[in-house]
Amino acid sequence: MASVKLIEYAQASAEVRAVYDDIMATRKTDRINNFWKALASHPPTLRRTWESLKDVMAPGALDPLTKEMVYLAVSASNGCDYCIASHTASARRQGMTDEMLGELMAVVGMASETNRLADGYQVEVDEMFRTPPA
Amino acid sequence: MASVKLIEYAQASAEVRAVYDDIMATRKTDRINNFWKALASHPPTLRRTWESLKDVMAPGALDPLTKEMVYLAVSASNGCDYCIASHTASARRQGMTDEMLGELMAVVGMASETNRLADGYQVEVDEMFRTPPA
Amino acid sequence: MASVKLIEYAQASAEVRAVYDDIMATRKTDRINNFWKALASHPPTLRRTWESLKDVMAPGALDPLTKEMVYLAVSASNGCDYCIASHTASARRQGMTDEMLGELMAVVGMASETNRLADGYQVEVDEMFRTPPA
Amino acid sequence: MASVKLIEYAQASAEVRAVYDDIMATRKTDRINNFWKALASHPPTLRRTWESLKDVMAPGALDPLTKEMVYLAVSASNGCDYCIASHTASARRQGMTDEMLGELMAVVGMASETNRLADGYQVEVDEMFRTPPA
Amino acid sequence: MASVKLIEYAQASAEVRAVYDDIMATRKTDRINNFWKALASHPPTLRRTWESLKDVMAPGALDPLTKEMVYLAVSASNGCDYCIASHTASARRQGMTDEMLGELMAVVGMASETNRLADGYQVEVDEMFRTPPA
Amino acid sequence: MASVKLIEYAQASAEVRAVYDDIMATRKTDRINNFWKALASHPPTLRRTWESLKDVMAPGALDPLTKEMVYLAVSASNGCDYCIASHTASARRQGMTDEMLGELMAVVGMASETNRLADGYQVEVDEMFRTPPA
Repeated sequence: MASVKLIEYAQASAEVRAVYDDIMATRKTDRINNFWKALASHPPTLRRTWESLKDVMAPGALDPLTKEMVYLAVSASNGCDYCIASHTASARRQGMTDEMLGELMAVVGMASETNRLADGYQVEVDEMFRTPPA
Repeated sequence: MASVKLIEYAQASAEVRAVYDDIMATRKTDRINNFWKALASHPPTLRRTWESLKDVMAPGALDPLTKEMVYLAVSASNGCDYCIASHTASARRQGMTDEMLGELMAVVGMASETNRLADGYQVEVDEMFRTPPA
Repeated sequence: MASVKLIEYAQASAEVRAVYDDIMATRKTDRINNFWKALASHPPTLRRTWESLKDVMAPGALDPLTKEMVYLAVSASNGCDYCIASHTASARRQGMTDEMLGELMAVVGMASETNRLADGYQVEVDEMFRTPPA
Repeated sequence: MASVKLIEYAQASAEVRAVYDDIMATRKTDRINNFWKALASHPPTLRRTWESLKDVMAPGALDPLTKEMVYLAVSASNGCDYCIASHTASARRQGMTDEMLGELMAVVGMASETNRLADGYQVEVDEMFRTPPA
Repeated sequence: MASVKLIEYAQASAEVRAVYDDIMATRKTDRINNFWKALASHPPTLRRTWESLKDVMAPGALDPLTKEMVYLAVSASNGCDYCIASHTASARRQGMTDEMLGELMAVVGMASETNRLADGYQVEVDEMFRTPPA
Repeated sequence: MASVKLIEYAQASAEVRAVYDDIMATRKTDRINNFWKALASHPPTLRRTWESLKDVMAPGALDPLTKEMVYLAVSASNGCDYCIASHTASARRQGMTDEMLGELMAVVGMASETNRLADGYQVEVDEMFRTPPA
């Protein structure tokens, strides 16, 4: 149960509808998911978050599938159930197979393990990793 | 200052040397970095961690650069200085440019933000994201 | 399903009842919530946690609403469903509106994003932020 | 040592300078701190992050000092050294005293403790905390 | 609802069955729990994870109950519901009482609290804690 | 550089000195470490934190070495440099060997890995782990 009333399209203000319309057009869907309906309780957060997300996830130097898999990896690291579910769905729509998900999760798990080992043993960063970028 | 004595090749046992040799051969380098020298204080952890890492990071359904970038994304999420430094270096060696790093970090930041929004608003997972995989 | 038996008032020892009585008197309620009933499985943890919480959340240099919102912000950062639910309720009782919640979550999200960017880029702390306090 | 070259004003592109100018004007300072100089390695991230931050931290239903303290609380929860240092400085400029910092940190610590207790004991959310908002 | 199809013994490949057989033999049970059935969607991850876990949790310098309690403590710190539930069950089978669980959770909570206080106040590590190990 | 002035014994108020005296007597040392000197900037937090820590870490159903190792495991999970350093030192004083530290870190790493796998695959808790405690 979300801690705010979910705003449906029919009840939404013009400002919120404009964002919903852009989400549906951009994603080629006629459905708004619960995340956006909850953010709509605070229209400036809805608009800013959607615009940022649209920019960040657009194709660029990284392709959309890679971006979705990184999103899923971070969401798994943060243990966010909602984002794991929604970005697993998005990544699958972009073509992620079970084998790719398997390798992705293996990297996420491995990184989590070695992150704690490096921290736990207080390992100092090697000089060669400190070389300033050109 | 690591909380264990770093084990240099010259002082290493045969068991540790075998792992060091495999690390250097696999990575085509003549250097062992501090992480492995610290793990060598507990040889079973050194061997298991290296073998797992070698398997997980090998090319497969995901290419090595994608894997390195996911590794870096998770390390940034966990705030592990050592792993951020070492995997930024690895990803650069695999071809990551400043622009790719910029997009990667943008996704990491965006996911972290929406993870907290989804959790903070207690948003329920939409039914459509719960559809069982085929 | 909690991993310990929840202790109801009727079955509680005198030591546990004393804490329950103080919780109800302090909060002007006749209900003990599940968190305390679970901690009652280990009376020293129940008593210490309640007494610490009562001290920490009492009005002081920060007012109770600010304290509840900070509590909620940290709980969202840690992804603790129980504490998000209970402290959203407490903050609302103290007067938090949807707009305040919206701004609070926006700050939580923004901080989470820039925390990962600062860590991910390994940005060094500026000298001016290191100035010792007077 | 940041993993990208810090961009100084003198070397910055017009796009980056426009953001730097707005940061200095908004904050009434003549200094750009390292965080922004690192983000400038990817101008779209610099601009988007600054614009979001400016919006989110502007006075609204919550006052600037409360927002800075929430930012600091989240940064402490995430263990981000850079953001802890910079937002401690910002909060002090907004009037945070040692006593306010003491109470803030006490709430952060208490929330972190009870978050883990609620999760660790798998405590179920009470029905009364699930009541939908009006 | 797991994001992959759970693999039951009857449908499993020979490679997966070999791991399942070893899990059941090692744990003296005739049941495979959901975690392994999900990992079986990616057999290399199933095999590697099980072999690592079997090695790590075997009796050694630390006894199995201590290991299970540390596992539970970390899982509570990471807020992983599945692992909290399964390792609470494992620790209880190894003899963990309510009183031991109470003390364990008290340490987990206390560490979480002081971790945030030390980070939040940016406390520098004392020279005496930096002394290199012999 | 801590964000508050460290309070030395010579400058401390009677209230702070009483806590310092108790720390030194309990730990049989003549030294106060930086953590407490920072907390002394807010005497109620100093006193409450010390008293809680003294209670929680006292021998009970779990022995002091086990408690120190759990503290270290949680601190490694949270990536708190200060607490990792200080509790590694404490655990070593209680008898932790390199081999015990190696096994401890192996469990911490393994738990972190499987926590992320269980979350990432959205694995549902098995019915048998939900059985209520007697």
